[in-house]
Amino acid sequence: MAKDYQEITGGVTAPQGFLAAGVEAGIKSEGKDVALIYSQKLAQVAAVFTTNQCSAAPVKLSQQNCQDGLTQGIVINSGNANACTGERGWSDAERMKELTAEELNLEQGQVLVASTGVIGQFLEMDKVEQGIKAAAANLSETGSNHAAEAIMTTDTYCKELAVEVEIGGETITIGGIAKGSGMIEPNMATMLSFLTTDLAIDAQLLDQALRKAVNNSFNKISVDGDQSTNDMVAILANGQADNLPIQEQGQAYQKFLVALKYVTKVLAHQIVLDGEGATKFVEVEVAGARTESEAEAIARKIANSNLVKTALFGEDPNWGRIVAAVGASGIDIDLVKLEIRINDLLLLAQDETVLNYEEELEGLLATDEIKLEVNLNLGEASDQVWTCDLSYEYVEINGEYHT
Amino acid sequence: MAKDYQEITGGVTAPQGFLAAGVEAGIKSEGKDVALIYSQKLAQVAAVFTTNQCSAAPVKLSQQNCQDGLTQGIVINSGNANACTGERGWSDAERMKELTAEELNLEQGQVLVASTGVIGQFLEMDKVEQGIKAAAANLSETGSNHAAEAIMTTDTYCKELAVEVEIGGETITIGGIAKGSGMIEPNMATMLSFLTTDLAIDAQLLDQALRKAVNNSFNKISVDGDQSTNDMVAILANGQADNLPIQEQGQAYQKFLVALKYVTKVLAHQIVLDGEGATKFVEVEVAGARTESEAEAIARKIANSNLVKTALFGEDPNWGRIVAAVGASGIDIDLVKLEIRINDLLLLAQDETVLNYEEELEGLLATDEIKLEVNLNLGEASDQVWTCDLSYEYVEINGEYHT
Repeated sequence: MAKDYQEITGGVTAPQGFLAAGVEAGIKSEGKDVALIYSQKLAQVAAVFTTNQCSAAPVKLSQQNCQDGLTQGIVINSGNANACTGERGWSDAERMKELTAEELNLEQGQVLVASTGVIGQFLEMDKVEQGIKAAAANLSETGSNHAAEAIMTTDTYCKELAVEVEIGGETITIGGIAKGSGMIEPNMATMLSFLTTDLAIDAQLLDQALRKAVNNSFNKISVDGDQSTNDMVAILANGQADNLPIQEQGQAYQKFLVALKYVTKVLAHQIVLDGEGATKFVEVEVAGARTESEAEAIARKIANSNLVKTALFGEDPNWGRIVAAVGASGIDIDLVKLEIRINDLLLLAQDETVLNYEEELEGLLATDEIKLEVNLNLGEASDQVWTCDLSYEYVEINGEYHT
Repeated sequence: MAKDYQEITGGVTAPQGFLAAGVEAGIKSEGKDVALIYSQKLAQVAAVFTTNQCSAAPVKLSQQNCQDGLTQGIVINSGNANACTGERGWSDAERMKELTAEELNLEQGQVLVASTGVIGQFLEMDKVEQGIKAAAANLSETGSNHAAEAIMTTDTYCKELAVEVEIGGETITIGGIAKGSGMIEPNMATMLSFLTTDLAIDAQLLDQALRKAVNNSFNKISVDGDQSTNDMVAILANGQADNLPIQEQGQAYQKFLVALKYVTKVLAHQIVLDGEGATKFVEVEVAGARTESEAEAIARKIANSNLVKTALFGEDPNWGRIVAAVGASGIDIDLVKLEIRINDLLLLAQDETVLNYEEELEGLLATDEIKLEVNLNLGEASDQVWTCDLSYEYVEINGEYHT
């Protein structure tokens, strides 16, 4: 099937009418740490947020500000999550919103706020305020890359992407930036992504499309099974492409959805690839399940197994650890029907090892991308989760992140 | 409260009428790898097994052989789990049972079989058979330590213990050995422990006591959240102490239960202390919960968080990761009521950081034993889980276990 969309450069500033900036405000010990994304026209907004009950002040504030479905600016800081900071944290998030509205000449209700970094420390608001002012002064049509850099924490590179797709005779564009890179688990945990499009679309349909795309991308990745207090994905649609506004789930909607899914999936994969200490990209596919959710539960159990992840790092095809994870998933299986494959090689069938470990598996994991396949042979449903291996560097990064 | 029991030496051979042995049969690349435990009289047996659905052949065989409540011998090999080995694995486990019965002159139904090690490889039965014969020839009243050594895999030291307790005017003895040390998670996962006692007790009460003891010890530890295919805890009670047989849950039963709980808890703690790459012993206590199971779920979420465990390894008091784990546990909490303490120091209350991170927390984690306390302030229930930190060595051991 030919793809309807094609990749272009420019990230969140690729769609018409979007500006962005990223500046160094001294919140992190080095590097850019305050970002702004701005739409020249008031935009439809849809967003999904962490399900962590200890969500941070900026998450709660942005949830409020999304309720009317309209947004024009997003302010983000990295280096400090503004979580577990009580009333002062709330007023700091409010101040970020107010100042951004002031600088961009917006209503206060038209601003989203996001923070990422260490939990439990108060923001140094003088630095944040200076950063917001500098970012507002630096907004540009080529600023996406700076914004992508400014939302990074332990990420080692910027994550951004844009695609063009023709809808109703008009070229519309979707752009996105994202950050990881530990604490990556389901339900919008521990990552930020901001998406922009110049498509004209009904607010409810935008919301539906975003949720579908997120469920097939950011919600299907796992670095360490930990869930963050701060994460969100938001999309702004400003209608500047002048397409006939999408009002129903017809062909135009489907084209948009496919392109949006692609953007979110690529960004999600970039997050996994840049997972803390990751040396391998791992796709876990569970097929032959009774239901998709059972397939997902098993895939997630495998993807979160430290024993599986360390074996992958050590390039040790110790598939018994995959079997152990399947058996411990809580999902009813039939061991005799279970099949396990690594990189397309069948290793277990009928509760029996298929290949001689020592001789035939050597070098099987000496690849940067690894596919772990489980077939339960119980039904027709399948699902996938993407993860990475667990390396010395993960321990190093997370044993020393604070200091 | 004065303790009714006191520690003595001798492990599983401390109680009257028990012999044990451990020999080197060449299943592992080095060290002892076949163990026997033998009761001179037919004993009551109670046992709990892994809940992993992909349980190994020896687990299934021992489950069958426990059904009549009587056992006289246990054979264990390390270095190979005999899991995912299909029909051949089943006949190999049967052969271990038959040969042990033959050597010890027992009925076949009076033998339990256990295996631990790599999954998915066939046992080299010539070595196993030679090992069983050698172990039978070496059975001795001081053989506990050899048996404890022979069941080790990546353990770095033997785990054994015995206590004496006076019951009904007789001195009765409880002994135990255990092995870890990765794949340690709830529900009897990834560990073996064998307990002996010369107490005379009703089979059903022995079973009840074992389940209670296991739930407060082996089921409350977690090294990496992975669940094994092979684990079991079994206790043999041979009645040689000549006490008035315990037939009801009276004072005598309670004294036995307290002593048994002590033995299993010490062995469980030894497993955590010797967890793969562990540098710290960590107690996670969740109090103020509505129910014990909610407290346990939260404690387990914290104990299994890689971000928490790496922070502990790095001695970084990054308590925000504890908050994130609590919030992601799926249990309803009230963030404003949540309190977090590390080593008795209050760090979070009323959704606000209590102490200045940089100045006041330095050195807080520079201890071998760490206590993480969460108070939900929602009810009266509490629970504890014991775990260890996540170090470079964990990654090293598990990246290279196979080779």
